[in-house]
Amino acid sequence: MGLLDRITSPQDVRALPARDLDRLAAEIRDFLVEQVSRSGGHLGPNLGVVELTIALHRVFESPHDTLVFDTGHQSYVHKLLTGRRDFSALRRRGGLSGYPSRAESEHDVVENSHASTALSWADGIAKARQLRGEPDRHTVAVIGDGALTGGMAWEALNNIAADSERRLVIVVNDNGRSYAPTTGGLAQHLDVLRTTRRYESLLSWGRSTLHRSGPPGRLAYEALHGVKKGIKDVVAPQGMFEDLGLKYVGPVDGHDEASVERALRRAKAFGGPVIVHVITEKGRGYTPAEQDVADRFHAVGRIHPETGLPLAPSRFGWTSVFADEIVRIGRRRPDVVAITAAMLQPVGLAPFAQEFPDRVFDVGIAEQHAATSAAGMAYGGLHPVVAVYATFLNRAFDQVLMDVALHRAGVTFVLDRAGITGDDGASHNGMWDMAMLAVVPGLRLAAPRDEATMRAALRTAVDVDDAPTVVRYPKGAMGDAIPALDDVDGVDVLARHEGEGRRVLVVGVGPMATTALATAEILAGHGLAVTVVDPCWVLPVPAALVKLAGEHDHVVTLEDGLVDGGVGALLGQRSREANVATPVQSVGVPSSFLDHASRDEIVDALRLRPHDVAADVLTALAARG
Amino acid sequence: MGLLDRITSPQDVRALPARDLDRLAAEIRDFLVEQVSRSGGHLGPNLGVVELTIALHRVFESPHDTLVFDTGHQSYVHKLLTGRRDFSALRRRGGLSGYPSRAESEHDVVENSHASTALSWADGIAKARQLRGEPDRHTVAVIGDGALTGGMAWEALNNIAADSERRLVIVVNDNGRSYAPTTGGLAQHLDVLRTTRRYESLLSWGRSTLHRSGPPGRLAYEALHGVKKGIKDVVAPQGMFEDLGLKYVGPVDGHDEASVERALRRAKAFGGPVIVHVITEKGRGYTPAEQDVADRFHAVGRIHPETGLPLAPSRFGWTSVFADEIVRIGRRRPDVVAITAAMLQPVGLAPFAQEFPDRVFDVGIAEQHAATSAAGMAYGGLHPVVAVYATFLNRAFDQVLMDVALHRAGVTFVLDRAGITGDDGASHNGMWDMAMLAVVPGLRLAAPRDEATMRAALRTAVDVDDAPTVVRYPKGAMGDAIPALDDVDGVDVLARHEGEGRRVLVVGVGPMATTALATAEILAGHGLAVTVVDPCWVLPVPAALVKLAGEHDHVVTLEDGLVDGGVGALLGQRSREANVATPVQSVGVPSSFLDHASRDEIVDALRLRPHDVAADVLTALAARG
Repeated sequence: MGLLDRITSPQDVRALPARDLDRLAAEIRDFLVEQVSRSGGHLGPNLGVVELTIALHRVFESPHDTLVFDTGHQSYVHKLLTGRRDFSALRRRGGLSGYPSRAESEHDVVENSHASTALSWADGIAKARQLRGEPDRHTVAVIGDGALTGGMAWEALNNIAADSERRLVIVVNDNGRSYAPTTGGLAQHLDVLRTTRRYESLLSWGRSTLHRSGPPGRLAYEALHGVKKGIKDVVAPQGMFEDLGLKYVGPVDGHDEASVERALRRAKAFGGPVIVHVITEKGRGYTPAEQDVADRFHAVGRIHPETGLPLAPSRFGWTSVFADEIVRIGRRRPDVVAITAAMLQPVGLAPFAQEFPDRVFDVGIAEQHAATSAAGMAYGGLHPVVAVYATFLNRAFDQVLMDVALHRAGVTFVLDRAGITGDDGASHNGMWDMAMLAVVPGLRLAAPRDEATMRAALRTAVDVDDAPTVVRYPKGAMGDAIPALDDVDGVDVLARHEGEGRRVLVVGVGPMATTALATAEILAGHGLAVTVVDPCWVLPVPAALVKLAGEHDHVVTLEDGLVDGGVGALLGQRSREANVATPVQSVGVPSSFLDHASRDEIVDALRLRPHDVAADVLTALAARG
Repeated sequence: MGLLDRITSPQDVRALPARDLDRLAAEIRDFLVEQVSRSGGHLGPNLGVVELTIALHRVFESPHDTLVFDTGHQSYVHKLLTGRRDFSALRRRGGLSGYPSRAESEHDVVENSHASTALSWADGIAKARQLRGEPDRHTVAVIGDGALTGGMAWEALNNIAADSERRLVIVVNDNGRSYAPTTGGLAQHLDVLRTTRRYESLLSWGRSTLHRSGPPGRLAYEALHGVKKGIKDVVAPQGMFEDLGLKYVGPVDGHDEASVERALRRAKAFGGPVIVHVITEKGRGYTPAEQDVADRFHAVGRIHPETGLPLAPSRFGWTSVFADEIVRIGRRRPDVVAITAAMLQPVGLAPFAQEFPDRVFDVGIAEQHAATSAAGMAYGGLHPVVAVYATFLNRAFDQVLMDVALHRAGVTFVLDRAGITGDDGASHNGMWDMAMLAVVPGLRLAAPRDEATMRAALRTAVDVDDAPTVVRYPKGAMGDAIPALDDVDGVDVLARHEGEGRRVLVVGVGPMATTALATAEILAGHGLAVTVVDPCWVLPVPAALVKLAGEHDHVVTLEDGLVDGGVGALLGQRSREANVATPVQSVGVPSSFLDHASRDEIVDALRLRPHDVAADVLTALAARG
């Protein structure tokens, strides 16, 4: 029986003699590699925080003290140390969440996986402790160096620095890479240098490299390391945090548990806000991850535990098509530039960056700046393409509205992982995009259904120079081509079923075209006359779609976004305004947070399968008599 | 003929001999006081930037060089120097906008009045100049010290620092007060100390004062002034900006035109990103403003030009009721705390701050942090009330959704200036709030119609401890009480008109109750049977409202927010889902940006007057036959 088997709560971690901690760490790494290679999940980040998490639970007493993890995908070790050992259904329905979850444990606080929030959470919690007369309860925020580039982190630091009495410990988990390194060479060098603990040479080398390549992380890097002040200060950095009046402890080798524990105890004893700067290695202790220069197994699908090779082909067909098409567009259009918020690889911009290194901007985890600087670039005569996961655009709603749309800037937003993503939990679903963007005046949004419509949508999008355009597509594999029979004023007709019964118009939004076609087959089997269409450009709702609605007795819209405020709801609105009385039945995601589960499980639960949709349509028709 | 009369373009400003500039500045101040006292507008900020704006136009060549003003309400002087002299209809339909406006002038770039955006705009524009081979075109951003507390500014600084070759000048307009001082005494002292140029004593005094009061601006203040490093460094500050690798020039007396001009020329010649730190006085040169400790005539209504006294009674009745009720709630509920984003006075939190100084948090211009730290406080056992202008909540959409709602945090958002505000232009209208918040699961929103419903809504809101609650109300005077005849399952019935014709349900959202009642009178005159209701809590749409809809032949909803995704649209959606076939006619704001105009002018243009609404209802009824 291993040490890990004996850990059922943080008390057990604290009770372990120090000499056993290396063995515990090794067992945790073995466990993580074995389990996550089966289920998929965030591997690299968790391998990097094993010793740090052990130390946190030895120094602080959760839940009396509060531990907040920024983004939360590095909380697997925390789960293990707080009594959650069954990883067999990780990220599947009924299994453990891939993020902290209050439903799972009193040790979990923040479920939101969007970056840069932890310091604000911690500030609020610490204020509450202070006001309620609970000064002995500490609040600890664990935040990555990348997340410090997000504006929220600055807003929070500004507030935390304003009160010197709150018991608040900020652990900067500095792996020097955030989601992705800016250059592959840098990552490799950092690994070598860090593992040999030659901090001085690391930092001076890092500085010159970073200056040359001009990445977004440079400022945070310099502030963290105080590199502008020479080698001496590197040992006891005098960077940004001390300028802000925050006590600073570090840097500490994040894989030396005793050192981390010592630093945390000092911070805990201080009695006011303290930064503890911990240097960690993403993927630590797992050779395939350590050798993966590009992203250190940040998030993996199912893999072979020994080789680290994927067991299934790449899931990201949509992303690959974007990656290819944007390069083609870039060759034709020298004014097209690309912007990413610290996710160059995941959104598929790596080939573009390779071919046009001067025309890609990684702004850090800073979606607000991505949107507004894009508006500035459009003003200056460029056409920026901002590629981002759909859920993360939520953070730039104000900027899309007020900087891009109000100024009629020709900026294209490309939303990957739109719709139901499922296994990463509530905050990763890209299901708010269409409802949110539908209220942005002038904005045009395309939801392509296959490769051809996606390439066409991208080409059209970058040709619009007086309004924001959006192309959104889901996570996962791209299906087969779905050709149109013909089109009605730009609305693709995908199928026509003759029938004697009532005339039903089925509108498939984006990848729901497949469901729309299958639903139509079922309805046609009941004798209904069914037309299946895909407008592709769904916002604003095309006039041709309203006209088509008027030519049918019933309309059903299928979308993988919110029903409220979504495409179906808008089609209903436009129809009423045009005195088209055909009822519009909107099928999509209800206004609620979706528990983590596989995409398929969620689609089933929401009754988005063809037979369920068809049954609901028949019920609605029957209700009208 | 004065000097100002001879200025029709920036060339004329550049052609003036230096000896004339003091006179020009004096003429501009006289002009501003005379004109703005007649029209209302932003007076204090513009009086503070007279010399700075003159210097900007002498050193840079707009529009070849680009000037970007953060928030834009300090652009009146810029308007005067770029040929816009007719202020007679300022902020009214057809007159000059109170903000930069591309429709007015090629010298205007950013119209968005939300703070902290200018650095991102400038970064984007400078990147475009660089890529397009226009390195001689400079980009200049003018940003206040308060706006530096916003997260976007940090994201932008991080990016600007990453490239040392862009021709980008950041002018920090430091009046040490942002929208409002944290303490009145501080403001007064800063004025005295600054005007006598005793920077050293100012800074050391300021530092100790700020440390005692612990305001949100402290960090930015310290970073700006380098106060942690002693008197010597104050003369040539070594603060945050230099840590970031940005060249720094300053501090400069912003009312000594020659000094400002000299600093700007140095910055222009540098060839990379430079900060120019200019100390200005808000309200400079106008005695009533200089003596107004609270907010230095930041924004005024019509005033007497000599005394500065308002010509009309205060317009902010809704704000006053909130100010009073939140104090009452605070007395009863020690767990209730208040949060403001640098607008303690304007949102009506001053009395609460006076009575409960430990229970109010001014977080700076940082709406994201306001929302997420509130979620943290709720987790810690408090009930935070976040008071903010409706339009500014847009910036915290992601945080309201993912930190507050997902975590079922009992946080109350109080939205002042909701709906059509008008004279401050497109970006100040609070018309997106309901459509945006309607997609937040679990959120409950009240739109009170009068004083009694507002007080009741606030009391109910703070009693909800497992979901976000929102109370939203308009700018302007509060009307008379509108009592309910009775209620139907919580939906207030305001009037019932008997009639032989079809049964019409008129739903008035919030202050539109008045319009609803008047519309009903007209419809009743046409023989229709009309019921007027106000649900007060409009999100989620009450089931009772759907039931009422089913008992009528036609529903018309009146709201001062977006039609798309608004309350009417949702009532239609819920009705269809409940197989209620009554058509819902949604009346409100179309999805477009509203040009600046008075609220009344906009209400007319949008056909939101009772006779227009009634006519449109009759047309819709006739169309159905």
